[in-house]
Amino acid sequence: MATLDKYCYYFGEGNPSGPGAKLVLGGKGISLGVMTNMGLPVPPGFTISCPTCQAYILSGNKWPKGLEEELDTYIARLEKDLGKSFGSTEDPLLLSVRSGAAVSMPGMMDTVLNLGLNDAAVAGLAKKTGNERFAFDAYRRFIQMYGDVVLGCEHHDFEKILNALKAKYSIKGDTDMTVEHLKELIISYKEYVAKKTGAPFPQDPKTQLATGISAVFDSWNNPRAISYRRINKISAEVIGTGVTVMAMCFGNMGETSGTGVAFTRNASTGIKEIYGEFLTNAQGEDVVAGIRTPLQFSQMTTMGPMWAGISAQLVKIMETLEGYYKDMVDLEFTIEEGKLWMLQARAGKRTGAAMIQIALDLIKEGLITKEEALLRMDPAKLSEVLFPMFDKKAAKTVIGKGLNASPGAAVGQIVFHSDACCEWAAAGKKVILVREETTPEDIEGMVTAAGVLTVRGGLSSHAAVVARGMGRTAVVGAGCCHINMDNKTLTIGDRVYQEGDYLSIDGGNGEIYDGQVPTVDVEFGEGFNQIMAWADEYRTMKIRTNADNPADCAAARRFGCEGVGLCRTEHMFFEKERIGVVREMILAESFEVRSEALSRLLPFQQSDFEGIFRAMDGLPVNIRLLDPPLHEFLPHLEEVDYIKTHAKQIGITYEKYVSTIRSLHESNPMLGFRGVRLGVLYPEISEMQVRAIMQAAVVVQTEGVVCLPEIMIPVLFSDKEMARLKELVTRIAKEVMDAEGVVVKFKCGTMIELPRACLVADQIAEHAEYFSFGTNDLTQTTFGISRDDGSKFIPAYQENGILPTDPFATIDQDGVGQLMKLAVEKGRSVRPGMSVGICGEQGGDPDSAVFLCKLGLSYVSCSPFRVPGARLATAQAAIKVMQEEKK
Amino acid sequence: MATLDKYCYYFGEGNPSGPGAKLVLGGKGISLGVMTNMGLPVPPGFTISCPTCQAYILSGNKWPKGLEEELDTYIARLEKDLGKSFGSTEDPLLLSVRSGAAVSMPGMMDTVLNLGLNDAAVAGLAKKTGNERFAFDAYRRFIQMYGDVVLGCEHHDFEKILNALKAKYSIKGDTDMTVEHLKELIISYKEYVAKKTGAPFPQDPKTQLATGISAVFDSWNNPRAISYRRINKISAEVIGTGVTVMAMCFGNMGETSGTGVAFTRNASTGIKEIYGEFLTNAQGEDVVAGIRTPLQFSQMTTMGPMWAGISAQLVKIMETLEGYYKDMVDLEFTIEEGKLWMLQARAGKRTGAAMIQIALDLIKEGLITKEEALLRMDPAKLSEVLFPMFDKKAAKTVIGKGLNASPGAAVGQIVFHSDACCEWAAAGKKVILVREETTPEDIEGMVTAAGVLTVRGGLSSHAAVVARGMGRTAVVGAGCCHINMDNKTLTIGDRVYQEGDYLSIDGGNGEIYDGQVPTVDVEFGEGFNQIMAWADEYRTMKIRTNADNPADCAAARRFGCEGVGLCRTEHMFFEKERIGVVREMILAESFEVRSEALSRLLPFQQSDFEGIFRAMDGLPVNIRLLDPPLHEFLPHLEEVDYIKTHAKQIGITYEKYVSTIRSLHESNPMLGFRGVRLGVLYPEISEMQVRAIMQAAVVVQTEGVVCLPEIMIPVLFSDKEMARLKELVTRIAKEVMDAEGVVVKFKCGTMIELPRACLVADQIAEHAEYFSFGTNDLTQTTFGISRDDGSKFIPAYQENGILPTDPFATIDQDGVGQLMKLAVEKGRSVRPGMSVGICGEQGGDPDSAVFLCKLGLSYVSCSPFRVPGARLATAQAAIKVMQEEKK
Repeated sequence: MATLDKYCYYFGEGNPSGPGAKLVLGGKGISLGVMTNMGLPVPPGFTISCPTCQAYILSGNKWPKGLEEELDTYIARLEKDLGKSFGSTEDPLLLSVRSGAAVSMPGMMDTVLNLGLNDAAVAGLAKKTGNERFAFDAYRRFIQMYGDVVLGCEHHDFEKILNALKAKYSIKGDTDMTVEHLKELIISYKEYVAKKTGAPFPQDPKTQLATGISAVFDSWNNPRAISYRRINKISAEVIGTGVTVMAMCFGNMGETSGTGVAFTRNASTGIKEIYGEFLTNAQGEDVVAGIRTPLQFSQMTTMGPMWAGISAQLVKIMETLEGYYKDMVDLEFTIEEGKLWMLQARAGKRTGAAMIQIALDLIKEGLITKEEALLRMDPAKLSEVLFPMFDKKAAKTVIGKGLNASPGAAVGQIVFHSDACCEWAAAGKKVILVREETTPEDIEGMVTAAGVLTVRGGLSSHAAVVARGMGRTAVVGAGCCHINMDNKTLTIGDRVYQEGDYLSIDGGNGEIYDGQVPTVDVEFGEGFNQIMAWADEYRTMKIRTNADNPADCAAARRFGCEGVGLCRTEHMFFEKERIGVVREMILAESFEVRSEALSRLLPFQQSDFEGIFRAMDGLPVNIRLLDPPLHEFLPHLEEVDYIKTHAKQIGITYEKYVSTIRSLHESNPMLGFRGVRLGVLYPEISEMQVRAIMQAAVVVQTEGVVCLPEIMIPVLFSDKEMARLKELVTRIAKEVMDAEGVVVKFKCGTMIELPRACLVADQIAEHAEYFSFGTNDLTQTTFGISRDDGSKFIPAYQENGILPTDPFATIDQDGVGQLMKLAVEKGRSVRPGMSVGICGEQGGDPDSAVFLCKLGLSYVSCSPFRVPGARLATAQAAIKVMQEEKK
Repeated sequence: MATLDKYCYYFGEGNPSGPGAKLVLGGKGISLGVMTNMGLPVPPGFTISCPTCQAYILSGNKWPKGLEEELDTYIARLEKDLGKSFGSTEDPLLLSVRSGAAVSMPGMMDTVLNLGLNDAAVAGLAKKTGNERFAFDAYRRFIQMYGDVVLGCEHHDFEKILNALKAKYSIKGDTDMTVEHLKELIISYKEYVAKKTGAPFPQDPKTQLATGISAVFDSWNNPRAISYRRINKISAEVIGTGVTVMAMCFGNMGETSGTGVAFTRNASTGIKEIYGEFLTNAQGEDVVAGIRTPLQFSQMTTMGPMWAGISAQLVKIMETLEGYYKDMVDLEFTIEEGKLWMLQARAGKRTGAAMIQIALDLIKEGLITKEEALLRMDPAKLSEVLFPMFDKKAAKTVIGKGLNASPGAAVGQIVFHSDACCEWAAAGKKVILVREETTPEDIEGMVTAAGVLTVRGGLSSHAAVVARGMGRTAVVGAGCCHINMDNKTLTIGDRVYQEGDYLSIDGGNGEIYDGQVPTVDVEFGEGFNQIMAWADEYRTMKIRTNADNPADCAAARRFGCEGVGLCRTEHMFFEKERIGVVREMILAESFEVRSEALSRLLPFQQSDFEGIFRAMDGLPVNIRLLDPPLHEFLPHLEEVDYIKTHAKQIGITYEKYVSTIRSLHESNPMLGFRGVRLGVLYPEISEMQVRAIMQAAVVVQTEGVVCLPEIMIPVLFSDKEMARLKELVTRIAKEVMDAEGVVVKFKCGTMIELPRACLVADQIAEHAEYFSFGTNDLTQTTFGISRDDGSKFIPAYQENGILPTDPFATIDQDGVGQLMKLAVEKGRSVRPGMSVGICGEQGGDPDSAVFLCKLGLSYVSCSPFRVPGARLATAQAAIKVMQEEKK
């Protein structure tokens, strides 16, 4: 790492610009600089750069050389510009110290407000504002916040001291405290801090600032932030947050003061209307925390000329900012005694529906081009608009209503804690997380929940913002709800719900329904169809789907898939009436018995394929022959009764049954007797499957269905395996076609999922008519990581920056990608233009799309609900590649 | 596969020559052609080529087009040349049909003798030979052999019929049967064949020939042959045997007839002396089967002028053949009524000691050069001369004596069946296989036995030849032994041994000792040292050893190793007094408890390393940090009592103990939480190990030992892992060196054992100072084959030709080799000339040596006993590469 020329940047002065600027200043730093330069009212201040924080972290939490001196210069400048000075008993300089990383991580890192107050400065503040109560309230807030963030004191200890004081003087609300009360409270607070930390509360503002900055640096690596980065796939290679140090302005100086947030368009629907909330006589934290229910932005004009003026000023600022950002903007502001101050502006988070609407409107308004609109959309969000809605015709009992914070229909069992939410979801349950209000600690729970319901908070509350961000259905501020955490009940009206009871919530209208309301598929809006049509114009790769049954095929087709990229045949083996026969086949002691059992499985498989072929009429269907090791189909040894019964039924001894289970056990099943290895040793299994596929094709073709089966051999590492199975497939196919007198256009190819298959892809391509990358297994073998076991260290590897992303979610271009490139080149050197697709999880991953596009893949295949996102992501990839080539 | 121009080759006429000739004609076909051209007495005949057999097998056992017609021409030629004709009642043409593959597979495939006999021809044979009894005996032998080999009749059924006839007429020996008896026997045989096969015994000689040839073709794929090829690593890519069709000559026409085998030098010691055995009035099979104890070649001169003449003729022929083969020759001959016929000649199989002696002698005699001698030696055989011998000073009770068929000292528990041998050996026991005589069915048992003892058979018997071939100690023809298979006892004199009792046998002198006689290391002979010295002149790669303790290090050093290539530290963890502490460390619930347990392990590890460093004074020692997943060190859940006791001892609950075992369980431990992954998450473990290594180095250096430790990080896939561990190693090393004020020259490198590590080797080489290929794991991941589970399909894959060899024994150059090449190039592009070694099993494999040499590896590392073989193999590789470059 090179030494840094400069650590601090005064707002708007000599700030870096261009795409790399965010990596230096962070999102907040950039926006404050931009607004300053636009002449918007921004409190003076400066940003300590992200690389400074990085240097601090990488050196083991030491301040880089020269930072202290540079900071002194900037503080001196601030003092001069504002005519205030640190610790002044006349007019003290007070600062906010906030985090602001390159990628927005709302609420994850720490903030210190009112910094600069001490026993002397509090008098100065009182004198300057003429408001002694305000000054001492600010001081006690500062002790509390600084104590919590910087000194490691406990928030609830401060609360206890506060409550004790209120009890002592029989005070009800915080606002009822007098100056004397506050002074007494400050003394108690300082005593607590001294006891807790072994040192008096620091009185030197410079010490406060230095430790405050370090605390914000440190908060980059607090568990919340680490977990947020992992969940949101924020690369661990970009390390460190920026820190903005800015003159305080106070929204809590009375009824001509206030604070709020606003979106230039509706973040839920995308409609072009200002959508904002504010509180008078409050600090910003009060809005986000959802403690008081805020006023709507539109109400501002009705509150008298001062507020109407502020409103008009804000509307104008919003127009300016939209013109600059060419996007919907989310802003934070504070009004101090009638004067507006801008604290933050950024492209606002939005729902999938809003994303589409806003993009279409911005194009119409001439602000952005079609390509820009496509590039700017988040493929993952697109799936939100595909989620089912409640059936309008279904009977439902509305039992309450909250704010429609994030759309969709969620049905699930209620739980009251984030941890419980994770556990229940891991057990396969659909869960609704019910909370008074959510905090950053609830993130993991929200990720796993089907929906979120909160009692307090507005549309800008933590719950609302985060739920919209992750596309989770949410109803917030439902005051009709009463939670009792002790006996884990939710009371709505006269109904009492226990943990585990079912509720349904509608994020579109905020309604809460009793029990489980049935859902239906949505009609796609015109906007969605328009975006998809544009995406289809640009993309170079086709989109297929991974589907094993006609219903999934039909769903994927509705979403625009162009074929089945992976049809796993083993799922069909597990159905109840089949698994017994499958086991019989595996337990067979002779070729004859096995063949007989296989002949009974054939009609099942054939009818499965018929259904799939009909659903995919006219589109190719790539069917993978049996993949998992046979032991996966056998019962567990513990199922003694079942084994005894089944053994009797199929005429073998219990001992033989058990010994077969034992003998098929594997130490490393991932690397075991599976895939083509089964086909080589038990060709009769593959023959049955091919026969079922071809007979199904013949049946549907005679119905007039256009059937394009592709038969795929899994887990191979050698051309010789391919040659053997190709011969088998061709022979059986010919037998079936000859017998029926029908010609079926079929292909025979292979899954490329082992490093060796990539390395000898030229040899394999002599026989294989197409390739499909199985990047899940290819990643497992290339990295030597079992997906089932990797969870023990992959998260730590991500946090340590060893893995920039989870390679099972996003293609590892350096390693796995190198093998894929080799395979494509070698394969096509022998069979020019051969079809090469990808059917691993990473096929549906937007972050892998540019790489796959450059690789020249023919298609990506993903689960049905990821198809629209893949259509968009592949279009974005194609546009990016085109733009790169132009350069 | 191209069409074949030609299927048959008349002996010596237009035969292909050069290195590829064997692939066409097979070893036997070549030798018969060569001898014919030399003017040696070879019965006329021709060879059907190996590719013909291959075409037959690959087309599903169909004769290639035109073979039948070509065969007719060749038979007509034979009839003309010999003045005999097929089925003649005057002088019938009789043929032998024998297998003969490119690589010698003695006794594994089928043979048919006396072919051409039928009800008419038998009369012709009688007339021509004037010996009716001989003719009918030949006919009944033919029915028996043809019935067994071609028609699928059972050998023991024929025996039953024969015995019934002998009982009926109270006949003792076979030779007591009259012509009338034989005629009656032939009728019974034919009845049995007709009943068994549903058709009369074929009378048409052409049918006999065609089916006979097919049967020999088929015998290529009999289970014996398949298993032999697998054990001897004969590539499954070379398919098919040649078939020699040759005029019969009879060694059983009376006392002026006979048959034998001879070696031009002693195959056991290598001494230049003719070493041969023969039987009068017998067929070749009788010698090999060991049914009658044969006469020594030297006796021939004492048997009258005819035999003395034959002996002189043979001595001359042997000289000629040695001159041609420039090697010790093994030959088969038959004398028919005083006339010598040569049936086979080939380079003879020999012991390791003989191999060395013969090579040295041939150089001295000017027949071959030093390079030729080195190239011709079998590295695997070299280890034979390293095996311990019985301690000359030890008391031993000689209880019997047999023939010294294959040298060495073997001590073990006796078993009487090949299967038992395999089972006991698999259970880790040392076993001596005791048999009346061995057959090809005993091969698997012989592979696993420490030694072989047979009651019957000479030095050319199956047991002797095979045991010498595989370097197994053998004493054969020990007539003093009496086996009772029913109660599984071996009686020698008045001693009775049960299965499982211990015996010791000396293959050097043929003695059998009671119980377990202690053994001592051999002194290497001058010859061995000479060969090794020459090998060391040529080789370009250094030889290291895989050793975890001072004793193994010392042994390897004696064998000439130049360092430790792999010292596995985990083996040290399993020792009795340590494993409890290791478990305590794993079960620790906090960093502190874990660190405390680690601090108790440190002295153990340190003293291990001290011992190893002392043993390797002056040579580098490459130590791998902890590799296996932690669960491998924990007890099994079933060990309830142990767990309860140990839990109590270390102060945790039984439930916690069990839940840790459960939580550490992995689905695919090969791809699990192991190697560097442990080092990243629990750096304290690596720190302890590095500290132990460096402290040990400091201790031995102060003693004057030259210590060159190399610290190796296992299982990594990323440069970031390497950077982290390098920092750790460097930091701890510095701490230790600073504390002791001593400088230790150490290096820090990595194992390259995952495909991704190869793919990003350039990035890794930025930090790693050396590479060592862990080709076991690299092969597992590149192929997606778990070594533990692959046994289910690898043998079948080899038999099917999908895997030419076991990739865990011999480097897969196409796949794994490609990755290795990449890694070497990328690694050295960043760190020119960096040391790159190999420590996987394949490092000691002679068949991989040329590839590893071309790769430019710095060293190969193998187990101590493979070191001399590796010295030779790497020299051979260097010579081959040199020769290739000259071309």
